[in-house]
Amino acid sequence: MDLERYLATRARLVERELAARFPPLRTRLRQAIRYSLLAGGKRIRPILALAAGEVAGAPSRLVLPFACALEMVHTYSLVHDDLPAMDNDDMRRGRPTSHKVFGEGMAILVGDALLTEAFHAMATARGVSAERTVRIVGEIAAAAGEGGMVGGQALDLAAAGRATSLARVREIHRWKTGALLRIAVRAGALVAGADGVVLRRLTVYGERIGLAFQIADDILDAAGHPASDGRTDLELEKATYPAVLGVDGARQAALRERDAALAAIRPFGPAAEPLRAIADYVVERTGLAPHAAEPATPAAPPVPVARARRVLR
Amino acid sequence: MDLERYLATRARLVERELAARFPPLRTRLRQAIRYSLLAGGKRIRPILALAAGEVAGAPSRLVLPFACALEMVHTYSLVHDDLPAMDNDDMRRGRPTSHKVFGEGMAILVGDALLTEAFHAMATARGVSAERTVRIVGEIAAAAGEGGMVGGQALDLAAAGRATSLARVREIHRWKTGALLRIAVRAGALVAGADGVVLRRLTVYGERIGLAFQIADDILDAAGHPASDGRTDLELEKATYPAVLGVDGARQAALRERDAALAAIRPFGPAAEPLRAIADYVVERTGLAPHAAEPATPAAPPVPVARARRVLR
Repeated sequence: MDLERYLATRARLVERELAARFPPLRTRLRQAIRYSLLAGGKRIRPILALAAGEVAGAPSRLVLPFACALEMVHTYSLVHDDLPAMDNDDMRRGRPTSHKVFGEGMAILVGDALLTEAFHAMATARGVSAERTVRIVGEIAAAAGEGGMVGGQALDLAAAGRATSLARVREIHRWKTGALLRIAVRAGALVAGADGVVLRRLTVYGERIGLAFQIADDILDAAGHPASDGRTDLELEKATYPAVLGVDGARQAALRERDAALAAIRPFGPAAEPLRAIADYVVERTGLAPHAAEPATPAAPPVPVARARRVLR
Repeated sequence: MDLERYLATRARLVERELAARFPPLRTRLRQAIRYSLLAGGKRIRPILALAAGEVAGAPSRLVLPFACALEMVHTYSLVHDDLPAMDNDDMRRGRPTSHKVFGEGMAILVGDALLTEAFHAMATARGVSAERTVRIVGEIAAAAGEGGMVGGQALDLAAAGRATSLARVREIHRWKTGALLRIAVRAGALVAGADGVVLRRLTVYGERIGLAFQIADDILDAAGHPASDGRTDLELEKATYPAVLGVDGARQAALRERDAALAAIRPFGPAAEPLRAIADYVVERTGLAPHAAEPATPAAPPVPVARARRVLR
């Protein structure tokens, strides 16, 4: 399995489709939308949707509008999270953030437009039954809304500078990042009409990969990929895994989630190779070798509560 | 037709449903959502959807989720428009704006959550076929997105302080306010499965009432209902009808739109009485008697171009 090639071809597919949906226009809003949406990025959410669709039997052509919608939702969340009133980031993917280039008002509108157009893309998807489309729209809205991504961001905002338990960290991450990664995998499966055990196994994969992804991101942050103003997430007093478990503990946690993700899709055979490779890729980003996590024996000590409860800085 | 009673009962229906969808929770996000969503307001969009549903044969019970979604989209747009980076309003409906009470970050998230939950409400509506739901979701997304409300707001932001033609004012208003009022009427009709001439006539009604509504709002602003910081829209150098046509010209324009709206629904008989009363109500708010507009004879002079093109302040 040549993962690099797989990721590159799928990312190109997504890129082309996004560019076709937002061709150049002379309005400032369109320019600002293209600036953030076509700025590269890993495209991990749409690729997960495409890869899950392959496992469940949906051609890329049918999954693509939903895959793009997921990327639009993700991009809107980045543009809004970068705003001065939120994380106040000046740089994103090596370029000045949207509000730095287009102003705060326009950056707010870019996010609003992308979120709205994501639902438009899904509602106008062709070749997928209205029943399936409505279900996916409902699930993505739930994952992105108050009980998902936005709710997680609000908890994060409220948690900054406060004492944070591991349970709280898990909850925030599950909402903020996990919900959208989970639904990315489900969306691909639902386009194919997957149900029952296939959908359940892919869902578990999505949940575990979502946690591994977020832990890996936290580790990268803690390892000195600071925010553009030089502050790391730790210094921003945010709820992160390394802050609560230490870097080594967080690495073990990421590997365990990766292993659980792999176990969930074990029965799926060769069609699931891309999903397996993506699971490894997620933890490899942290510099971890893709070997198995230390076995969690029945006697393994629970997460130390005192450590989990320690106050961030 | 007792319009006051009609509006009051329908507004109560919407109010109850919105409150049931967002019961009190201890999270700050939920508190902030309730603060803005349950703050009263005319509920004109959901009421238009319910009234159009009555004409086309859809019971309120089926229209209600879509009606609430329209109000959630409207409320999100107010919360975001009030932000310092946009119109910077401190007061809304007689109370401090969301960002004044909960902070800018939380106000951004309130808007994001309401927009997302609007689509969730539609996707989980019961008793309406998936085909109809998908169509309404697509139309509301189009009306609210880059080619509609958000696009209009972006044009408005860009037009501030610039020379503005009447054509430009019309375009901005059509996008910014008109698109959502038009789709409110259509949504009610689409729930009932309306098509052909019924849908077309209701659509024209929605378009005309949308213009009348926006002109009336502009007149109220110009007549000294200033923004919370004491500035009127004219002083904010924004594109308004009175700024371009003068107050008298704007009043005539509002009456003409009202008359066109009434003409479109003339064949619908008693079931359309609420829609007729709402059309009158919209222009009456400006202190205009609900009489007919001055007849536009074939020899009526076109809108003076020089006046239309004059620079705002």
